[in-house]
Amino acid sequence: MGIVYQLSGVIAGVIGMIFTVFLTFKVLEKEPGNEKMIEISKAIQVGAKAFLISEYKILYMIVGLFALFLGIANSWGMAIAFVFGATMSVLAGFFGMTIATRANTRTTHAAISSLGSALKVAFNGGAVMGMTVSSLGVFGLGLVFFISGEDTLIMSGYAMGASFVALFARVGGGIFTKAADVGADLVGKTEAGIPEDDPRNPAVIADNVGDNVGDVAGMGADLFESYVGSIFSASALGALAFSVKGAIFPFLVVSFGLISAIIGIIIVNLTVKSKEGIDPSKMLHFGTYIANIIELISVFILSKYIFGDFNSGVVILLGMIVGILIGSITEYYTAKNPIKKLAHTATSGAAPILINGMAIGMESTAIPVLLIAAATIVSYKLMGLFGIALSGVGMLSTLGITLAIDAYGPIADNAGGIAEMAHLDPEVRERTDLLDSVGNTTAAIGKGFAIGSAALTALALFASYINVTGIKSVNLTDSTVFIGALIGAMLPFLFSAFAMQAVGDSADIMVQEVRRQFKEIPGLMEGKNKPDYEKCVSIATKGALKKMILPSLLAVLSPILIYFVLGKTAVAGVLAGTTVAGVMLAIFMSNSGGAWDNAKKYIEANNFGGKGSMAHKASVIGDTVGDPFKDTAGPAINILIKLMSIVSIVIIPILIKFFE
Amino acid sequence: MGIVYQLSGVIAGVIGMIFTVFLTFKVLEKEPGNEKMIEISKAIQVGAKAFLISEYKILYMIVGLFALFLGIANSWGMAIAFVFGATMSVLAGFFGMTIATRANTRTTHAAISSLGSALKVAFNGGAVMGMTVSSLGVFGLGLVFFISGEDTLIMSGYAMGASFVALFARVGGGIFTKAADVGADLVGKTEAGIPEDDPRNPAVIADNVGDNVGDVAGMGADLFESYVGSIFSASALGALAFSVKGAIFPFLVVSFGLISAIIGIIIVNLTVKSKEGIDPSKMLHFGTYIANIIELISVFILSKYIFGDFNSGVVILLGMIVGILIGSITEYYTAKNPIKKLAHTATSGAAPILINGMAIGMESTAIPVLLIAAATIVSYKLMGLFGIALSGVGMLSTLGITLAIDAYGPIADNAGGIAEMAHLDPEVRERTDLLDSVGNTTAAIGKGFAIGSAALTALALFASYINVTGIKSVNLTDSTVFIGALIGAMLPFLFSAFAMQAVGDSADIMVQEVRRQFKEIPGLMEGKNKPDYEKCVSIATKGALKKMILPSLLAVLSPILIYFVLGKTAVAGVLAGTTVAGVMLAIFMSNSGGAWDNAKKYIEANNFGGKGSMAHKASVIGDTVGDPFKDTAGPAINILIKLMSIVSIVIIPILIKFFE
Repeated sequence: MGIVYQLSGVIAGVIGMIFTVFLTFKVLEKEPGNEKMIEISKAIQVGAKAFLISEYKILYMIVGLFALFLGIANSWGMAIAFVFGATMSVLAGFFGMTIATRANTRTTHAAISSLGSALKVAFNGGAVMGMTVSSLGVFGLGLVFFISGEDTLIMSGYAMGASFVALFARVGGGIFTKAADVGADLVGKTEAGIPEDDPRNPAVIADNVGDNVGDVAGMGADLFESYVGSIFSASALGALAFSVKGAIFPFLVVSFGLISAIIGIIIVNLTVKSKEGIDPSKMLHFGTYIANIIELISVFILSKYIFGDFNSGVVILLGMIVGILIGSITEYYTAKNPIKKLAHTATSGAAPILINGMAIGMESTAIPVLLIAAATIVSYKLMGLFGIALSGVGMLSTLGITLAIDAYGPIADNAGGIAEMAHLDPEVRERTDLLDSVGNTTAAIGKGFAIGSAALTALALFASYINVTGIKSVNLTDSTVFIGALIGAMLPFLFSAFAMQAVGDSADIMVQEVRRQFKEIPGLMEGKNKPDYEKCVSIATKGALKKMILPSLLAVLSPILIYFVLGKTAVAGVLAGTTVAGVMLAIFMSNSGGAWDNAKKYIEANNFGGKGSMAHKASVIGDTVGDPFKDTAGPAINILIKLMSIVSIVIIPILIKFFE
Repeated sequence: MGIVYQLSGVIAGVIGMIFTVFLTFKVLEKEPGNEKMIEISKAIQVGAKAFLISEYKILYMIVGLFALFLGIANSWGMAIAFVFGATMSVLAGFFGMTIATRANTRTTHAAISSLGSALKVAFNGGAVMGMTVSSLGVFGLGLVFFISGEDTLIMSGYAMGASFVALFARVGGGIFTKAADVGADLVGKTEAGIPEDDPRNPAVIADNVGDNVGDVAGMGADLFESYVGSIFSASALGALAFSVKGAIFPFLVVSFGLISAIIGIIIVNLTVKSKEGIDPSKMLHFGTYIANIIELISVFILSKYIFGDFNSGVVILLGMIVGILIGSITEYYTAKNPIKKLAHTATSGAAPILINGMAIGMESTAIPVLLIAAATIVSYKLMGLFGIALSGVGMLSTLGITLAIDAYGPIADNAGGIAEMAHLDPEVRERTDLLDSVGNTTAAIGKGFAIGSAALTALALFASYINVTGIKSVNLTDSTVFIGALIGAMLPFLFSAFAMQAVGDSADIMVQEVRRQFKEIPGLMEGKNKPDYEKCVSIATKGALKKMILPSLLAVLSPILIYFVLGKTAVAGVLAGTTVAGVMLAIFMSNSGGAWDNAKKYIEANNFGGKGSMAHKASVIGDTVGDPFKDTAGPAINILIKLMSIVSIVIIPILIKFFE
């Protein structure tokens, strides 16, 4: 196939980057607001940057060691690809977050004049993240693909780099943000009775920093990993099934997806400009749908042109439909009727809302799993393993815009915080709150895509592992395979335990510190004296950095350890066990957390006694428990599953070379 | 082999039953206490009996339908064995509970004179349960084995009957007991501020009834199932590996185990008599160890005599060691250092103790799984699949005494309740409380055996399923197998969701009712008027009966449904997925629940502010959330796993006959 095909990823990546630069200027040209607002925003920027730099230092030490091993034991090409993948992910997260922390005051400032302009700034801030992640992702992988001469193993190095960073960023950022959040809420809201984002709360800056390093940079690295992982696994399986055509096809799919996302982003900007003041969620949805429709048309044409039939188009359509359905189910369980019922149980106390919230999360695993099962079976029937992988790619192909809508949420959230801290007009806060709540709903599609693609990509990576290790069959009647699956199923539980314990421990130190400041700093409650914000930021930073290492190493080292004790076939069992149990645990934790969050919000909207009622107190406890569920452990499990698979794909063949 | 060997199960069962009758008289000959105490005990007995009879009515309707299907579609022999298995389980649960509800006042009365005599009554009450379960279990299965001429399929009917009853009894009893418990605690302890078991609490009788139908009858049916399931699976795999010798060997193992348990029970009775006033936990442990040592010696001799080597002895020893170690790990996580740390987090509020309690439960899955893995691998190496099954039998062979110690707990708990309600001297309550706390510790061994044997039996049943369906290989690279495993992993989550929602909903109705009675019955708080106990019992009964059906049917119908949609190999995938995810979820839920329970007790022992402090309130919330975790969903998942396997073993071959 022509060089243009082979370079499609690189070309699309470059186009995406150019558009990103354009978007960045569009965000930065806005007014950053008054001095007070700039000061707050600066404090958030400084805290976030300091945390990320410390995080990256630790990360690069581990990445360096691993790269050395890869270079010596296997090939320097793979080692370079690995470092390159890690670096692209770091860049995407860092750049996206840098713009996000600048978009927040600009959103606040825009909200002074109108809802529409605030929406545009926040959305474009998120779009920078979305476009950065997808442009750098496909550019980097495309470059490795081209330079290595379509070498799947070298590409796997790039994918492993991306997964590596993702896990650290999600876990580290997740611990930071939730330690700060829990600390700020427990003492500030519950004990001292001051509102959210009140500047008298010593943990308030740490909390806002957390939103950026966890929800923005962490999520960016997370989706960078999903995006790269799905393209890589599809390309690897495509090469097996259809040689070069199959290897290139996923790149074409995402390249067109990138262009479609750009069109969608432009449409959102145009719609918001022309129709000042109408329903923001409609505009965001409209842009997303247009992008997906354009992508689908392109994919069907591509499918016919390259493979001579529409099968791969059907598979990608299926992936999108399943993604949207999973998103709707997620939204149903975390924002519709079950939430009203859940909020009602809070009138009987904290224990009932906790019990029922967990039941909701557990129940919510059922339909998504059946949908994933259906997508897998149909895709497999149509196109074999390649079909399963493509279905996952379909969900993420328009990531530029779906992630824009995801990342827009924390920006709006932060903008609200700045409005509160800068004592702006309550009307401004109302506008940013509306934007924030819209973000929570529109993010459902993104969540559905993330859950669905994680499962499908994990399946595809499992198939790749079997292929690279030359295993004939992974037979569950072989007791080492079954034992492997049992151990594999345990790992997401152990991993979650570490992550939650880390949040619990760090939050505990934070609580003590915030209590101490309230007690020891004179005039703090009266607003006469400023709290020591940095101390809280530093507690969250130290806690996160120290405690992100153990769970992350668990993911990297377990497959290697199992290989030495039980062999390569047992490793396949481990991967299967981790996948099946991990998918459930991730959905359960994310949705229970989401349900508690929204039940609290529902009560705060003057239901069952509203703010300050007994039901509200109970719901705040639920929400706090849900924090590490939905923002630390839950999303990190999806990465855990894929990182373990990719580590196995990269490392086990090397070990086999040496030891078998 | 001679007829004595073939009838070993029946003979041991008869000996066990004779000893049970003797024990029963020993319990009933004790003084039942004063009129007030008898009245309370009667109320508990009446409530428990009424619930069980209603439960059995529903149960027998479903059992009848299933038996009809089995008879028409397959063989009436299997149908009869199925009804027989169900009936033996019902009898064991009902008889054991009848004695337990009579042992409780007698324990209270004995506690008036001394700790030692109270210990003996409570222990013997529990021993009646332990001996009934094991005698009827082995007698019934032994009889089916003998009459059917060692027909494995007909035996599987008996095992399915036992599993059927177990799931309904565990789920129904679990919902009843926790709805009542949560209802009583939330309003009584937390809102009204009256102590546990206070007669002014309208839900207090329901709570005590719950202890008997859930913790006693439910647990009895549960262990009946485990015992029968492990013997059946070992016998079936033994027949494959060593023909008649192998089929009979597990019966010999448990027959000697039964005799050993009798000796252990006698020793406990003798020790307690001679050494008035020393450490009760030592006496209970001493009896258990003696029983296990006698059993081991017998098994090693049997092993040499029947197979010519000590392998089967080693495998059983291994099972016991692993069981004891899992018990110790369980105890560590739910009663040692982690609990002190957990109790400390309660000083920061309810959310931290909840987050950390879940982390403890999740972390506690790791070592047991590795121990199970080790036991499996070594057993498999020594004796193949038969070895894995035997290892599970080893853990349960001395069930007569381990269950005695388990069932003794609720008796002591109830005895304390009666002391409180009958306004006896505080010293009496102190003694029963001590007995209760000893029960919590000694029960750890039983728990370890239950967890370990469930996993090993599930593995063995999985192997039996492969065998009866003639599947060549359950290859995870086959996408229907992987999808099956994914769906299988989802089922324990969905099942737990149903069970917890049932507890949540029933508890909610209970809370409203208790609040209503406190408000509407004049003079209730002053003790001038009696609450309407029956109303609360009836709420718990209705809730439990209505809501036990859906989760139970889920277990029975899923494998059948999957067979029709995805085929018999996918069913194997489902069983594997359910096993690996279910084992984790069960350990996590049981141990988180146990940890919260003990953290609360630790705080109540005057730590971190003691009763009434903020930390105590937080710990009560943790304990309440833990209730459905550890007493409803957690233990029921172990049955779910095995019932699904046995249903598949029994039903899928019939379906294959018709449809393939």
